[in-house]
Amino acid sequence: MTAKPVFRGREAHDYPLLIKQLWHSALRRTPAQEIVYRDLKRFTYQQLRERVGRLANVLAGLGVQQGDTVAVMDWDSHRYLESYYAVPMMGAVLMTVNVRLSPQELIYTITHSGASVLLLNADFKALIDEIRGELTTVRSYIWLDDKESAPPAGESYAGEYERLLAAASPDYVFPDFDENTRATTFFTTGTTGLPKGVSFSHRQLVLHTLAVMAAGALANGAGGFNALQVYMPMTPMFHVHAWGCPYAALLLGIKQVYPGRYLPETLLELIKREGVTYTHCVPAILQMLLSHPKSQEVDFNGFSITIGGSALSSGLAAAARARGMNIFGGYGLSETCPFLTTASPHPILGKLEGDADLNIRCKAGAPSPLVELRIVDANMRDVPEGTAGEIVARAPWLTLGYSNNEAASHELWAGGYLHTQDIGYFDRGYLKIVDRIKDVIKSGGEWVSSLQIEDLISTHPAVAECGVIGVSDEKWGERPLALVVAKRGAKIEPDDIRSHVMVSADNGLIPKYAVPERILIVDSIARTSVGKIDKKKLREQYAGAC
Amino acid sequence: MTAKPVFRGREAHDYPLLIKQLWHSALRRTPAQEIVYRDLKRFTYQQLRERVGRLANVLAGLGVQQGDTVAVMDWDSHRYLESYYAVPMMGAVLMTVNVRLSPQELIYTITHSGASVLLLNADFKALIDEIRGELTTVRSYIWLDDKESAPPAGESYAGEYERLLAAASPDYVFPDFDENTRATTFFTTGTTGLPKGVSFSHRQLVLHTLAVMAAGALANGAGGFNALQVYMPMTPMFHVHAWGCPYAALLLGIKQVYPGRYLPETLLELIKREGVTYTHCVPAILQMLLSHPKSQEVDFNGFSITIGGSALSSGLAAAARARGMNIFGGYGLSETCPFLTTASPHPILGKLEGDADLNIRCKAGAPSPLVELRIVDANMRDVPEGTAGEIVARAPWLTLGYSNNEAASHELWAGGYLHTQDIGYFDRGYLKIVDRIKDVIKSGGEWVSSLQIEDLISTHPAVAECGVIGVSDEKWGERPLALVVAKRGAKIEPDDIRSHVMVSADNGLIPKYAVPERILIVDSIARTSVGKIDKKKLREQYAGAC
Repeated sequence: MTAKPVFRGREAHDYPLLIKQLWHSALRRTPAQEIVYRDLKRFTYQQLRERVGRLANVLAGLGVQQGDTVAVMDWDSHRYLESYYAVPMMGAVLMTVNVRLSPQELIYTITHSGASVLLLNADFKALIDEIRGELTTVRSYIWLDDKESAPPAGESYAGEYERLLAAASPDYVFPDFDENTRATTFFTTGTTGLPKGVSFSHRQLVLHTLAVMAAGALANGAGGFNALQVYMPMTPMFHVHAWGCPYAALLLGIKQVYPGRYLPETLLELIKREGVTYTHCVPAILQMLLSHPKSQEVDFNGFSITIGGSALSSGLAAAARARGMNIFGGYGLSETCPFLTTASPHPILGKLEGDADLNIRCKAGAPSPLVELRIVDANMRDVPEGTAGEIVARAPWLTLGYSNNEAASHELWAGGYLHTQDIGYFDRGYLKIVDRIKDVIKSGGEWVSSLQIEDLISTHPAVAECGVIGVSDEKWGERPLALVVAKRGAKIEPDDIRSHVMVSADNGLIPKYAVPERILIVDSIARTSVGKIDKKKLREQYAGAC
Repeated sequence: MTAKPVFRGREAHDYPLLIKQLWHSALRRTPAQEIVYRDLKRFTYQQLRERVGRLANVLAGLGVQQGDTVAVMDWDSHRYLESYYAVPMMGAVLMTVNVRLSPQELIYTITHSGASVLLLNADFKALIDEIRGELTTVRSYIWLDDKESAPPAGESYAGEYERLLAAASPDYVFPDFDENTRATTFFTTGTTGLPKGVSFSHRQLVLHTLAVMAAGALANGAGGFNALQVYMPMTPMFHVHAWGCPYAALLLGIKQVYPGRYLPETLLELIKREGVTYTHCVPAILQMLLSHPKSQEVDFNGFSITIGGSALSSGLAAAARARGMNIFGGYGLSETCPFLTTASPHPILGKLEGDADLNIRCKAGAPSPLVELRIVDANMRDVPEGTAGEIVARAPWLTLGYSNNEAASHELWAGGYLHTQDIGYFDRGYLKIVDRIKDVIKSGGEWVSSLQIEDLISTHPAVAECGVIGVSDEKWGERPLALVVAKRGAKIEPDDIRSHVMVSADNGLIPKYAVPERILIVDSIARTSVGKIDKKKLREQYAGAC
C-alpha cells in the first residue's frame, strides 16, 4: 500500500529559484549595509534595491521585455551591480561584454547575443564608435560616465545613467516566472575558433550563490567568504559574474566595494580605506598588487583571497602568505558558473603549516557541495585513484550548451558529463590540475605538465612570471620550452633556472625528462583578455625557438 | 531581436536536486571523517555510505519500491542516519515516527503514512505489540537493538538490523528521478484535532541543507554551524529531520555524534568525550542539561547551541552564556522543514555585549537566505513596521499541504503564503515572536503576550520553569495565569513573582495590565511530546483555577 495522498493547499506557493529572491533576507537583516563605488558613491542595500527598480523602469521604457537581452560594457561599478539584478529580475537576459575583446569579437559577441540595449561606459565610446554600424541588434545606448556628463548627441543615446535613474520610479513589480529562464549570457574566448556563448538560468545562479555561501561555512577558519568580511571583486564583473561573489555578498549582508577599472593604486587604496578583507582574482592581478611599490603601505594580515583562472603557484602563494594573506585556490570554467572546487584546507586535515599547508592551498581544491567530479580516460571510464585523467563534472549550475554552436555543445556534454578539457587527479580529496589537455607536453610518449614546471620555476627568487609550452622536437615529438620574466632589477640566466628545476628532478619530485633544455629570458609573456597565459599565442610566437 | 538560441548538448545533464547528491563532495573531501554512535559504534563517512547501500538492498529485498513508505521508530542512532539516506535515495518515503505519541496516535500516523516496513527499536516493542493488529499497512519489521539480539519470533520480523546489513551488498544503484519526489513524511501533533501529516521533497531537503550551511557562513563568529564544529543532535531525529542538521553536517564534513536516547548523563558524557561543539534543542532539554549535577564537569566554553521549538528566554540564555555557551534562537515549524530564521547577531550590529547581545540572541531571528516573511493582518495586508501581526512565509522548503486533510491544507496556504499562526514583529531585522495566535491573552481588548510574561518570570533566580495561559475572566474577558516551578531546594511565593514582574511594569517595559494577579506554584508543567509547554492541556487543567 502506498501512502495517502498529500493535499496541496489550493494557493500553495511553488517557490521558483529566482534572482529577485536573494533580496528577501538581505533587506530584512542588513538594509543599512553599504555598497561603495570608488570614492564616488555610497548606497545602502535598501537604496540599491530601489535603484534596481529604477533601472528596470528605465529599461522597460526603452522597450525591454522578457526574453530581450541587455548588454553592459563597464568597469566594476554600482551600475554593473544594479544590472546584475534589474535585468534578470525583469525576465530579460544580462549580457556581460568582455571589454578586452577585439572590435571584430565585440561585433560577433554583441550581435550574437541579440542585445537591444547597451549600457556603455564612456571609456569604451571610441571603441564602439568604430563598429557601431555593425551592431545591428542594438537599438538604444545608455551612457555611463563617472562624471555624469551628458550623453553624446544622437538619437541612439537614451540618456545618462544617473539622470535616467533619478527620473524613474523605484517601484517595479518583478514578476514570477520559470526558474529555468535564462538570466545571463556571455562569451568565452577559447583558444580555438570563434567566441562561444554560454548562458545561465535563474535557478543555476541561485544555487551557485548558495553553494558559494556553503563553501564559506566549509572554509571557516581558513579564510572563507562569510559575514565577517568586506568584499571587493578583483575578477572583472564581465567575467563569469565576478565568480558569483557579488550575489553571495548580498546574502551575507556584507559591505561591498566596487573599484571601477583595476588600477593597482585604486585597488590598494580601497583595500586600505574601506577595510576590504575578501577578494578573488587570477594570479596575474595578485602579482601586480604585490609587486606594486604602494603595496607595502597596506596591511594584509588576515586578508583572504581566492585565486582562480590559472593555477596558484607555490611561489605566489608563499609571497602572499608572507604578507599575512589567507590565500587558496579555486577551480572552474566559464562554462561552470564558475565554482567547482575550492582549496581551503578542511579542519579534518589538522593544523597544517609551511609546505604542507601551501600544498593544499595551491591545489584546485575539493568539490563544492553538490558537485560531482570524475577523472576519466578517453572512453569515459574512471581511472584509478591518484592517476591523472580528464576532469568531467556534473553540478546544478553548468551551462547546458553554447549558443548557436551545436557541435561544440554536444562535444561539451559527450557522455553526460561536462568536459573540462583539463587533466587532473585527486590527492586526499583535493584536485590537482596537471594541465590543459591541449597544453600538456607529449615528450617521448610521456606527459610533461607545463603547469608543474611553471610552478617550480616560479619558486626561484628572481622570477616574476613564467610560461611553459611544448615545442616540436624531432627526436621526442615535443619538448618543453620555458619563457621566464625576471623580477625588476634581478639578473637571471637560463642556466640558473635549469639548475633550479634540476634540484626537483634530483630529489625525485619530477622526472628528469621534464627538465627543459630550452629556456628563454623574455620581457613579457602574452596573456589572454582575462589575464591567463595565452599559450596558443606563445606556441605561435615561439614555434621556431631554439 | 531576441537572442540566438542556446544549443543544448545532446547528453547535457539536468541535475535534479536529490539527497544522494549530498554525498559527492563529502566523500571526496572527508571520506575518513567519523560518525559515532554512543560508545558502541564508529564508522567513517565512506563506511556509512556503504551501509546506506546495504540498507537499500535489505529494503529492496523486503519489496520496498519507489513510492513506498518505510517508517522508523528509534532513538538517535547511526541506524536512523542510515535511513535518512537509504530510504529517500531509493525513491521511497521515510516516515519518522514520533515515539512519544499515544498508542491511538501511533496507529493513526503509521497507518496513514501507508508504511510497509517498520524499523523498530527493541525499547518500543511492548508499545507496538499492543497495537500490532491495527498496523494494517506494515508487512515487515526490522529489529533494532544495541545488543544486536536476535529478533523476536514470528514471520513479520525480517531480521536484526546489523545482521541484515552485514549480509547485504553495499552496491546499490540509486536512480535519478524527479526532484519533487516525496522524500520524507511525519506527523505534527497540533493542539487541536488529529495529527497532521506533512511531507518534504528531495528538492526541498537539498535546498534546506544548503540554507543551513549558508546560515553557518552568516553566523560566522557568532557560533554558527561550520566545518570547525563537532555535531550532536539534541532535537530527536524523528522531529523535522533533527532540524535538517544531519544533512548539513555531512556536507560540512564534520564529526557527527549520535547519542541514542536523551539521557542527561549520556549527553554530557558524549559532549565531553567526543568534543561536541555544536548542537540544537528545545529550551527544556538545555534546562535539563544545565541543571544536572554532572554538567559542572563539562567545559562549555565555545560550545554553540541553537534553541528552537519554543522561545529562548533571557533567563536560560543568560545561564547558558554564564557557562561560556554561544547560544542563539532559531524559528520554524514542522511545516517549514523547519528553519525560517536564526538569531545569530550579524556583524553589522557591531560588538554587542550584555543585554544588547542577549536581546538579539533571544529573538526568533533574521530570515534565512531565500525566506520571505511578512507580518500581516487578518486580511493579509502588511502591518506597519514594528507592529505585531501574523507571520506568514514563503520559502523553497515549505510543505505544500497536509496528507489526507484538504481543509487544513487550504487554510495553511490561504492567500498564497504559509500561515505560521504565530504573532510577531520585526525589530531591526530580527523577528520577535509575541505569541501563538491561540495562546495570546485577550485582556480588556488588549493583547497580552504569554511568552513575554514567561520570559520575565524566567529571570527570577528561584524559577526553574514557568508557563502562562489565559483563563476566562468576567470583567476582562481573559486574564493571565502564571504557573511556576521553583528550582530544586528553592522556596518561592506567588508574591515574589508578582513583585518581580511588577518591576518591569514600573519601568515601562510591559503594560501594567500584563502583570498576572493569578500565580500558582506547581510541581511540574505539562509538556507536549516534543517538549513544548502544552498550553492546551494547561488550559484544561487550570480552567477553574483561582
